[in-house]
Amino acid sequence: MVDVLALVEQARQGGPRAVARLISLVEGASPQLREVMAALAPLTGGAYVVGLTGSPGVGKSTSTSALVTAYRKAGKRVGVLAVDPSSPFSGGALLGDRVRMSEHASDPGVYIRSMATRGHLGGLAWAAPQAIRVLDAAGCDIVLVETVGVGQSEVEIAAQADTSVVLLAPGMGDGIQAAKAGILEIGDVYVVNKADRDGADATARELNHMLGLGEAREAGDWRPPIVKTVAARGEGIDEVVEALEKHRAWMEEHGVLATRRRARAATEVEHIAVTALRSRIGDLRGDQRLDSLAERVTQGTLDPYAAADELIAGLTAS
Amino acid sequence: MVDVLALVEQARQGGPRAVARLISLVEGASPQLREVMAALAPLTGGAYVVGLTGSPGVGKSTSTSALVTAYRKAGKRVGVLAVDPSSPFSGGALLGDRVRMSEHASDPGVYIRSMATRGHLGGLAWAAPQAIRVLDAAGCDIVLVETVGVGQSEVEIAAQADTSVVLLAPGMGDGIQAAKAGILEIGDVYVVNKADRDGADATARELNHMLGLGEAREAGDWRPPIVKTVAARGEGIDEVVEALEKHRAWMEEHGVLATRRRARAATEVEHIAVTALRSRIGDLRGDQRLDSLAERVTQGTLDPYAAADELIAGLTAS
Repeated sequence: MVDVLALVEQARQGGPRAVARLISLVEGASPQLREVMAALAPLTGGAYVVGLTGSPGVGKSTSTSALVTAYRKAGKRVGVLAVDPSSPFSGGALLGDRVRMSEHASDPGVYIRSMATRGHLGGLAWAAPQAIRVLDAAGCDIVLVETVGVGQSEVEIAAQADTSVVLLAPGMGDGIQAAKAGILEIGDVYVVNKADRDGADATARELNHMLGLGEAREAGDWRPPIVKTVAARGEGIDEVVEALEKHRAWMEEHGVLATRRRARAATEVEHIAVTALRSRIGDLRGDQRLDSLAERVTQGTLDPYAAADELIAGLTAS
Repeated sequence: MVDVLALVEQARQGGPRAVARLISLVEGASPQLREVMAALAPLTGGAYVVGLTGSPGVGKSTSTSALVTAYRKAGKRVGVLAVDPSSPFSGGALLGDRVRMSEHASDPGVYIRSMATRGHLGGLAWAAPQAIRVLDAAGCDIVLVETVGVGQSEVEIAAQADTSVVLLAPGMGDGIQAAKAGILEIGDVYVVNKADRDGADATARELNHMLGLGEAREAGDWRPPIVKTVAARGEGIDEVVEALEKHRAWMEEHGVLATRRRARAATEVEHIAVTALRSRIGDLRGDQRLDSLAERVTQGTLDPYAAADELIAGLTAS
């Protein structure tokens, strides 16, 4: 058994290996998961979580790396969680496990973690918040959560973030892509990357139109800014950081941050509870109780709903 | 409130409108669902459930219709459940709601029901077995469950059947399609329809090869037959019926039918229990308990796992 408290203390002191081991523990649904989560809880809440989503090829990794550089210059400790819902590979070295992040590999103020979610118990919604909590407790001021891939998983990841950045690039038909993926509803800040390419202005205009940014808004409403960047050269990145800070300030001013975090915690607790109950029921596979209930259903002496009631009653009694 | 017992009695007497209303009740998760299921339970178990799956265009509806004709000639009462996981339309007229089935529309020994599953609480796995149970209780000797579409839903529907028929047609690249969709693992009987077309023999050979039918098997193992049909002309349909009867006899002889039905009932009970628990938790949305747990999680005074435990405890106490 791992000495969880010692590990948490080491992570708190900035030990990258301790952080890596803690993430592995929560990621792998270790028997000590609950112990880890209990130890982390009082240490969390300090990190600001920024989600980055967008279609493949828009330059998410480059943008993330540029944001890390900017935040490091400002003296912030930064955690990076790169989530790839389609990859079977997970974990690995905490530092330098991704080539494009290699410039930050030797920086003790940066934690980088790749996370695959295929095969994870409960999927993305389950694994990512636990890893974010580790990075938070380890003293990261900013946690950047970058999702590779598109679709539902992006929306799920965005739901984990305090502020969601949606990236696009010119000439990729991103407008339609974005609309399809529903990511137009999740962006707090929009970035048109590769803005030195033809069509950047058109993409920004199209986006502006789709977001209805020209329309009147209620006073006090958040108006998602559209920032143009060339992340590979670091251009526009300071403006992105500024937009993120503005959004954070707006959320704090309007009580939105607390509301978002509470809603997120509620979803997470709900998800863990459902997973736990599902797993308890799954444990009954091959169990005498479920078998005999099933037998009675096939014989017609019990209907499946009454059987489910009996199953639940037995579950909560145990 | 509907007089459920009277309705079940009318259905038992062969009243098509009573059958239709019962299916609507179970499909729509009516408050009387449990009452209906309890009333149906003692009347079920008599129907033999045959699943028909295959890619669009292989002639599933035509084959189903031809099978109905064959079973009717043999004096059997037949229920047809056409499940379309992608369609938002459901229910409708019990008789004659599908053009290609129109020849059976005026036959009082045939019940035809279309079922869409989009938006159904619990999806396909939840809705279909209840409708099958209604048709079973109404005295159908055979229930044909035809799935439109491909993929996971087919596999789910196959899991509801006593015997699964996988349909293919020549020249559709069905071999690869079938392998991809995983339906090669679910077929008890294979049908190459449109066998008057070029390539029918090649499709049958390819299938034979993919299924490893040339390899040695344990004595007593079921060896899925491959039947060639031209369903539009009724050719080969008697052979399909014969293959189905053989599979049924083999399952009964080897105790497989009882095992399958018990496993199916166990899955169903499990599914209903999980759905019920999930719904109970979902009911807590906006509830004081979940909100205050979430608040404590965001404040770091409680970890999400401990919060989930409290939620579950509160759930089972209520």
